[in-house]
Amino acid sequence: MPDQPVPDGHTAVPVLEHLDEAECLSLIAPGGIGRIAYTGRYDLTVLPVNYKLHDGAIYFRTAEESPTVQDLRTGIDDADYRVAFEVDDFDHATREGWSVLIQGPAYHLDDEAERADAQAIGLEAWPGGERDHFIRISPLRVSGRRIRRAR
Amino acid sequence: MPDQPVPDGHTAVPVLEHLDEAECLSLIAPGGIGRIAYTGRYDLTVLPVNYKLHDGAIYFRTAEESPTVQDLRTGIDDADYRVAFEVDDFDHATREGWSVLIQGPAYHLDDEAERADAQAIGLEAWPGGERDHFIRISPLRVSGRRIRRAR
Repeated sequence: MPDQPVPDGHTAVPVLEHLDEAECLSLIAPGGIGRIAYTGRYDLTVLPVNYKLHDGAIYFRTAEESPTVQDLRTGIDDADYRVAFEVDDFDHATREGWSVLIQGPAYHLDDEAERADAQAIGLEAWPGGERDHFIRISPLRVSGRRIRRAR
Repeated sequence: MPDQPVPDGHTAVPVLEHLDEAECLSLIAPGGIGRIAYTGRYDLTVLPVNYKLHDGAIYFRTAEESPTVQDLRTGIDDADYRVAFEVDDFDHATREGWSVLIQGPAYHLDDEAERADAQAIGLEAWPGGERDHFIRISPLRVSGRRIRRAR
């Protein structure tokens, strides 16, 4: 076949691939912005937070008295709400990218020792203010997919 | 006060603002990637789709037989599942950005005339393939927030 000009994202054939857990965790390892989804007082809610991946779990911080924290407290010891956490990265020019979905319980780091460990991973909350409440999502299910363009 | 060098995103004081509905709709008007959240067979699920805003509603397309479509069908006429749809844009360098959350019913455009109207808005599904199923989310609640840095 003769050399063809490389097709742009609009014409190349898209391929949708499913990613395994190791690929997913590798893609989200750098941290950054992810979105936590949960059912709260305002129905199904999705909010971006900046996160870090540490020891295979998602960590983010928020304000102690925030609606998110209140919505995520079951009020029962050792019972956590199950949430979803999504991270993605798409290139609008090529229309390629990937997304990862983590599902698992949202655990509140209420213990001082746990909180100190979480502080040590150097997680800052971009909105600033008093955001000293740490939440950890331990993945029960990890799934992901990638769109790439056949060249 | 003497002139100071402009602080970078890490040192400038972050300000969190709530956005009104008009600002939110204006921010998401260009379309692009958003994330639909719903409770499906695999629990709470968040998936990116490319969308357009048309007549104040979110439109996206997917495959007729996809798990998403099946999960979003109540099986009851005139009854739609309520979903959440999130769009955001953050600048990692300045740590500024915004997010918008739309909540409302996910309506399936099963009628040929509705489908023709939706085709006319020129919505393509990035993953390609047979994605001839259109879904419209009519906002019942629109909320948003912006992080900016005081200079």
